[in-house]
Amino acid sequence: MTVRGTLPDPEALAAAVAARDRAALARSLNLLDDRRPQARRCAAHFLATLPSEKLDVEGHLIGITGPPGAGKSSLTSALIGVWQQRGLSVGILAVDPSSPLSGGALLGDRLRMLAHDHGSNGSVFIRSLACRGEFGGLSAEVWPMSLAMLAAFDIVLIETVGVGQKEIDISKMSDTTCFVAQPASGDSIQFLKAGIMEVPHILVVNKEDMGAAARKTLTELRFTLKKQMDPAGWQVPALAVSAVKGTGIEKLADTLDGHRQWLVEHDLLDTRRKQFQAEWIVKRLREEFGRFGIEKLGGEQHLFQVLTQRSGSPFDEYDALRDGFLTHWQES
Amino acid sequence: MTVRGTLPDPEALAAAVAARDRAALARSLNLLDDRRPQARRCAAHFLATLPSEKLDVEGHLIGITGPPGAGKSSLTSALIGVWQQRGLSVGILAVDPSSPLSGGALLGDRLRMLAHDHGSNGSVFIRSLACRGEFGGLSAEVWPMSLAMLAAFDIVLIETVGVGQKEIDISKMSDTTCFVAQPASGDSIQFLKAGIMEVPHILVVNKEDMGAAARKTLTELRFTLKKQMDPAGWQVPALAVSAVKGTGIEKLADTLDGHRQWLVEHDLLDTRRKQFQAEWIVKRLREEFGRFGIEKLGGEQHLFQVLTQRSGSPFDEYDALRDGFLTHWQES
Repeated sequence: MTVRGTLPDPEALAAAVAARDRAALARSLNLLDDRRPQARRCAAHFLATLPSEKLDVEGHLIGITGPPGAGKSSLTSALIGVWQQRGLSVGILAVDPSSPLSGGALLGDRLRMLAHDHGSNGSVFIRSLACRGEFGGLSAEVWPMSLAMLAAFDIVLIETVGVGQKEIDISKMSDTTCFVAQPASGDSIQFLKAGIMEVPHILVVNKEDMGAAARKTLTELRFTLKKQMDPAGWQVPALAVSAVKGTGIEKLADTLDGHRQWLVEHDLLDTRRKQFQAEWIVKRLREEFGRFGIEKLGGEQHLFQVLTQRSGSPFDEYDALRDGFLTHWQES
Repeated sequence: MTVRGTLPDPEALAAAVAARDRAALARSLNLLDDRRPQARRCAAHFLATLPSEKLDVEGHLIGITGPPGAGKSSLTSALIGVWQQRGLSVGILAVDPSSPLSGGALLGDRLRMLAHDHGSNGSVFIRSLACRGEFGGLSAEVWPMSLAMLAAFDIVLIETVGVGQKEIDISKMSDTTCFVAQPASGDSIQFLKAGIMEVPHILVVNKEDMGAAARKTLTELRFTLKKQMDPAGWQVPALAVSAVKGTGIEKLADTLDGHRQWLVEHDLLDTRRKQFQAEWIVKRLREEFGRFGIEKLGGEQHLFQVLTQRSGSPFDEYDALRDGFLTHWQES
């Protein structure tokens, strides 16, 4: 997607986004995906102008993931209902992995349904993003887009499909990661047991209405989780819900908020967001310049130390390192 | 793993490997994983000396993958039995994804069992490889190790755990890719349906002895496969087997061989192996020098065109491109 015509005034755009102007928000997301150099400069200026306290310590970045068919979109829809009742505004980024074979869109239809159910209400904003593969795809912009959404909404929810996929590692850009399993979905539990899948902060078994199968899956998950602790010390809860019947959704919303409170109490919310930004920058540098580039820029550990102390926008910090690397390149 | 002491004579080592000398084979795999510059040169010489007709058009590189718990190791063990009866020698590379959290080894124990069952017989060779993460891990050496194994064995089987994982994409290094599902393993089928998982050449539902659940999974897979064709035109078969009871294993061995025959008849065996090598080289260049490096070397398409025409060893071809890139780098 390309911003057609003239570029926006970045400061006016930032103010309009912070005021939750829907057209401005849509325009800002297009701008963040525009690769032209002058658009990139405008986007960097826009990001740098967003109110930093909202990006650092306010709002709640929630990642929801799970295999296709687990009912993530209906669960999202049910959660939106609860959050709206609580007076919270919600922005949704749905990252849709394109099929290497069919190029098909998984989430499109369900998102249109979601937009139909909630879209007329000004407090919900939904944006679907195609993920165009391992390198250089739109997925690279999920982090800056999350920041723009954080400036506007109380809750920013990133939805993606997958089990332990690295491309869109939602655990590296969400305050709280929530994995949705369906009853009798053996593979996910096997991946979790085997340590191939990262342990989320909250595990949800959807389709509680399926009865015995759901209870069995919940028991298995709870047993598995006893052995797999979140490294930071958070006790991972496993909940059963039914998105369709609406049971357990209030409790899930409370649990999500409980994890945010826990992060705040342990002084982890802003620290982790700084780490996410550092990881985003290092990952993009690695994609652009490889292991060689990371070494020449002082190594990963050095870059993390430097970047977690910095407060610039992701594009500004990235460009500074990029320019430093390129001064050593000589075309013959 | 590092080769201790002096480096081997690469030509003598290649001859010993081609003669299926087990100690030489073990030593060659260590050499291929040795990062020291002089070891790398020795390894390049070793690879260049292996009999090229064995690497180009002989043997059968088979990749077996599937979620943990699907019974891949028991299936491998059952297949070894059939292949031995048919007088075929078998080399196995088991790639074990380390857990990001526990660092645990998934396959180790089962492999020791396999080695115990078959290892005393000179016609089977088993090697387990840890996969140390996304970049620079041992997994990078699976392709050169497969070549060393191809020089020695009729069948080289690469076993790995996963569903649609990109790190060890065995479909990019196997003549024939076989996915093992277990009955009622909904997630794998969902990934396949959604096009997130690449379609393998052969789909196996293990644990046929589970009865109705296995039949249902087989029916679902067959229905899904009708819509998802292998791009080259191969009709993907779905088979039910029981590794534990030994049923369907002969037929699976026939089907695997049938796919190899199909590749030979369509002139695809050597073409695909050349592509695997080109992909291996381009992937490693991308890891080392990033998108920037690939562009500066003429772009991915150009590199593929050049590399699929070349017949050098993977290390020699890689080093030539690497050196070309580095001439443009100026330390200040």
